[in-house]
Amino acid sequence: MRGARNMEGYGLFLALLGSALLVGFVSVVFSLVWVFRYREGLGWDGGAAEFNWHPVLIVTGFVFIQGIAIIVYRLPWTWKCSKLLMKFIHAGLNTIAMILAIVSMVAVFDFHNARSIPNMYSLHSWVGLTAVILYSLQLFLGFAIFLLPFAPVPLRAALMPIHIYSGLLIFATVIASALMGITEKLIFALSSTGYSSSPPEAIFVNCLGLLIVIFGALILWMASRPQWKRPPDENAKVQRPNGGAPEGMEAESTMTDCSNADKSDVGFNSEAARKRNFKLDEAGQRSTM
Amino acid sequence: MRGARNMEGYGLFLALLGSALLVGFVSVVFSLVWVFRYREGLGWDGGAAEFNWHPVLIVTGFVFIQGIAIIVYRLPWTWKCSKLLMKFIHAGLNTIAMILAIVSMVAVFDFHNARSIPNMYSLHSWVGLTAVILYSLQLFLGFAIFLLPFAPVPLRAALMPIHIYSGLLIFATVIASALMGITEKLIFALSSTGYSSSPPEAIFVNCLGLLIVIFGALILWMASRPQWKRPPDENAKVQRPNGGAPEGMEAESTMTDCSNADKSDVGFNSEAARKRNFKLDEAGQRSTM
Repeated sequence: MRGARNMEGYGLFLALLGSALLVGFVSVVFSLVWVFRYREGLGWDGGAAEFNWHPVLIVTGFVFIQGIAIIVYRLPWTWKCSKLLMKFIHAGLNTIAMILAIVSMVAVFDFHNARSIPNMYSLHSWVGLTAVILYSLQLFLGFAIFLLPFAPVPLRAALMPIHIYSGLLIFATVIASALMGITEKLIFALSSTGYSSSPPEAIFVNCLGLLIVIFGALILWMASRPQWKRPPDENAKVQRPNGGAPEGMEAESTMTDCSNADKSDVGFNSEAARKRNFKLDEAGQRSTM
Repeated sequence: MRGARNMEGYGLFLALLGSALLVGFVSVVFSLVWVFRYREGLGWDGGAAEFNWHPVLIVTGFVFIQGIAIIVYRLPWTWKCSKLLMKFIHAGLNTIAMILAIVSMVAVFDFHNARSIPNMYSLHSWVGLTAVILYSLQLFLGFAIFLLPFAPVPLRAALMPIHIYSGLLIFATVIASALMGITEKLIFALSSTGYSSSPPEAIFVNCLGLLIVIFGALILWMASRPQWKRPPDENAKVQRPNGGAPEGMEAESTMTDCSNADKSDVGFNSEAARKRNFKLDEAGQRSTM
């Protein structure tokens, strides 16, 4: 933790992280209040209660958990953990988010089919399904290239900027899609009282939309500050032809776990031996350089 | 132009720029086809034809022109132009975009008021108005801090990362808001035939939504590649306490215009004399270093 506190702007980072966790958590609570207080609750019966899993699981998984997965490398107290462990956490959170997103889509298709409502006609569905497909592709390629030990380091270095850009773009697209979904659902659900008469549900769910936008803005700020990037492992820098450091990339897994004691997983990656982690807490954080 | 061709990945940049211009232009055409072929055309009579200015002006100004304004510094053939000239172009394009966005909002308010439809009830209106207000603030602060010669260089350096982040976030928020607007308008306009029956208008305007997303993705990729950043002016680098180069920032205006001949605007900025432009075409582009 001594190293973490040396991060440049540590206090601001903590404040933003706390805000993001709070706003994200409140968004999940808002989605639950929406479906339980204003709608039909949750169920799995082909009816409205099954549809309601869609906003709840999207906000929980595809917005909140995906957002946390994006910034997990930036938590300074994880910088002494092995890169491999952090990759597992990053991939694990994204896998959970993807499963929740898929279940949430199944809920909508079930609901539509039970009521003979066509599927995939709206811009929301087009953009949303595209996001889920790209997210699955991103997760598969991320697993194959950055987690499994087969891809050569120059390939990883070349693809890392694309991985980062795609991740942030998909996250932003998911949020845009969620906002469209809220718009659609409020118009359809409030067709009798009227969305335009601003009943309490409309105001409440509009606020949920704003919370999601604020959560996204916080995550994108934290994810794009160069000074909050996980410091490169000293012995594992990629050498590029032009000498520049690849964006967002320190080359490869280091095998030091969080305790700096158990080296039993070293054998997982053949490059591990020559890339033993530079112990950041002992050598000083980048921000103190 | 010799210098421009030395940009790293010049061909790819040109291909992406061409794609962005094409997709942006086609989006504007789509918005016009939408209102003229499927809707009531354009007019200023408080009726539907007045409302139709809203999507046309938003797509033209707030999406297409704003997108071009974002990447205008990255056009390599402008790197020999003075920074001040490029700032005027950047600010000018953003001003045009803001005016079009405001006129497009007036059209909606007029239309609503003429038909006694409430204003500002939907999530689209909340997010969209927030984007317009933040955009105006961004333009005002950008003008005061980065264009006028009064702000000290360290302040500019400190605020530039926020300016860049805010600009990209507002652009993404505008696109999300446009997608919500398309969703709303299709549901309301197709209430008789039904959006869910996918009439030709629904398919066509969904495609417009996808084009806007693709345009945004292209602009955000081009705007976030460090190798395509305008090279820093050699004599005008900001010295920071920790020695790092501020993100997205070479400190201040250089006064060489595009022809490298007319220096009549040197007097505009008192720092000009000691920050005479380092002639990039003669000294070599950053990408060749």
